[in-house]
Amino acid sequence: MTPFADVALTLPPVAPLDQTLRAALQAAIDDKTKPPGSLGRLESLALQIGLIRGDAAPVLSRPAVIVFAGDHGVADAGVSAFPAEVTAQMVLNFLNGGAAINVFTRLHGLALEVVDVGVRAPLPAAPGLVNCRVANGTRNFVDAPAMTPAQAGAALNAGIARVLRHAQLGTNVMGFGEMGIANTSAAACLMSRLTGLPIEACIGRGTGLDDAGVAHKRAVLSQALACHAGVTDPLDVLATFGGFEIAAMTGAYLAAAASRMVILVDGFIASAALLVAARIDPNVLQYCVFSHCSHEQGHRALLAEFGAEPLLALDLRLGEGTGAALAWPLVASAAAFLREMATFSGAGVSNASA
Amino acid sequence: MTPFADVALTLPPVAPLDQTLRAALQAAIDDKTKPPGSLGRLESLALQIGLIRGDAAPVLSRPAVIVFAGDHGVADAGVSAFPAEVTAQMVLNFLNGGAAINVFTRLHGLALEVVDVGVRAPLPAAPGLVNCRVANGTRNFVDAPAMTPAQAGAALNAGIARVLRHAQLGTNVMGFGEMGIANTSAAACLMSRLTGLPIEACIGRGTGLDDAGVAHKRAVLSQALACHAGVTDPLDVLATFGGFEIAAMTGAYLAAAASRMVILVDGFIASAALLVAARIDPNVLQYCVFSHCSHEQGHRALLAEFGAEPLLALDLRLGEGTGAALAWPLVASAAAFLREMATFSGAGVSNASA
Repeated sequence: MTPFADVALTLPPVAPLDQTLRAALQAAIDDKTKPPGSLGRLESLALQIGLIRGDAAPVLSRPAVIVFAGDHGVADAGVSAFPAEVTAQMVLNFLNGGAAINVFTRLHGLALEVVDVGVRAPLPAAPGLVNCRVANGTRNFVDAPAMTPAQAGAALNAGIARVLRHAQLGTNVMGFGEMGIANTSAAACLMSRLTGLPIEACIGRGTGLDDAGVAHKRAVLSQALACHAGVTDPLDVLATFGGFEIAAMTGAYLAAAASRMVILVDGFIASAALLVAARIDPNVLQYCVFSHCSHEQGHRALLAEFGAEPLLALDLRLGEGTGAALAWPLVASAAAFLREMATFSGAGVSNASA
Repeated sequence: MTPFADVALTLPPVAPLDQTLRAALQAAIDDKTKPPGSLGRLESLALQIGLIRGDAAPVLSRPAVIVFAGDHGVADAGVSAFPAEVTAQMVLNFLNGGAAINVFTRLHGLALEVVDVGVRAPLPAAPGLVNCRVANGTRNFVDAPAMTPAQAGAALNAGIARVLRHAQLGTNVMGFGEMGIANTSAAACLMSRLTGLPIEACIGRGTGLDDAGVAHKRAVLSQALACHAGVTDPLDVLATFGGFEIAAMTGAYLAAAASRMVILVDGFIASAALLVAARIDPNVLQYCVFSHCSHEQGHRALLAEFGAEPLLALDLRLGEGTGAALAWPLVASAAAFLREMATFSGAGVSNASA
């Protein structure tokens, strides 16, 4: 593999959260007209949002979801219940407004952008489709790296560039979704290699494999991990197992955190991309809100790896950023109570006798 | 106690859900462009909404929350961390738009109504305050019934009337919240008596009692339950332990289900009121969506009693209908995906190979 040193890639550095406001934020939360702690998980979320934005009355503006789409060579090894052409078909469905992520972003007022980072069959140009194609899908990583370092760099840069564009438009809260048939396989390999967990702990039924399908997936991925046994550097691992949409998300997380955005982390694939980002720069995790705990088996272990406390547990396993879009109203609620609720003294409400 | 037979009270009968559409609804959900089952809990929720509304493309209109407020004589026994005057102070806070329920209903587009069913100190007339006062708070139930049957009937009727008013305005989805210092004590006694669970399993810290406070609360409520040992009929139990806001909620649930509304059940107090309603007419439960699992200890046991699968688990323990308001975006999401998502055939997306 060509070393990454030859690739034009500048990953944005992420500052740790400035903790200056912490005590003032906690005091503001406790002075709201409610028993202390009674908004539960929304209170710690409000504190985090206040720290990220450096604001005791944070305004979350122009919430957005980017869906990155790409195809995976490993789909040819029969690791998914759906055929690879579904990636392109679902991108068209996104563009027509008919997918779940369209419904949820429309309903909850999030901007939605669809980015082709490397779907196998080129798609016709269409309004609303951002073309950042790196290649016609990745190579099958069973016996060769999914991408060259240059391809991985291009995908990372695409994710960074799209986030910086949204930052220019005024977005300070975003989530990232993905579409890519077989990408639970890529995500499972990334997770296994970067955490050291056995592949069995990292795979699940994906979009709906039966027991035989899961056994086959396990065999294929075990072979792939053995083939690339020496690869351990996070960027090398990313390039080896792919995919383009995962690499773009990795870049997107780093850019979003560097831009001090509140990041809505979706499900298993999105969390695997975050794992790569966190191995590159652990500070990124401080900007992340974990939207939900997926039904996909590996996700729970991955959340534990992050020490994450997800907002929702609805047994979702769809991807596309749907969990992020569904969690957004809760995130908005946390910012809103911090910004808008009356205080005990201001409202003339007696505080607890304690 | 005067028998309820003398009270002018017509509780609306609740029809069981018409199951005619079930198979068609499930087929519609499975034909959406997503792996089958991949929207998890939202799929069973969409099915329930479709059945309640008798519509495979359900439109949930004019979502609303009513907060019922009332005072409890048992507050004088020192069972709450907050003094009784906070009930009236918080009602004024609701009217001024400064409480958590104001923030969440405003943010998520729910109508909010505040109903005084019997706060201790009469409140000045104000726009936005609905006066259905039954009395200046309930009696202390430690040694006498909290309400007369006539008072309980008046509170039940107030809840019914308010819901029917919202039905006239076009509401077909609503939640009910409450404000009433010491009302976790009333709710715990209702729960213990109607379920047979010991009082220990039904009480918690309320708005923030310490260990000694909880021990005192347990002693007071044990004494009250012993004093009213023979009371077992649901309406009699309601009148005995109160309060007015809980009785109003009980009536509201029955009227909402009779009006074929989707009901957003809030936390512990709201669930205790629902328990009374369900003992009067078990069909009411088929119209209920359980918003969240509260931090208040008794709530988990109460949810188990209903066989409920709550949407959120955020350790809320505020009341006011805040959990219902926070769950509304998820309920709206479930209806929206059923109504708006493309189908496999319509969108030209290949289905799973299985």
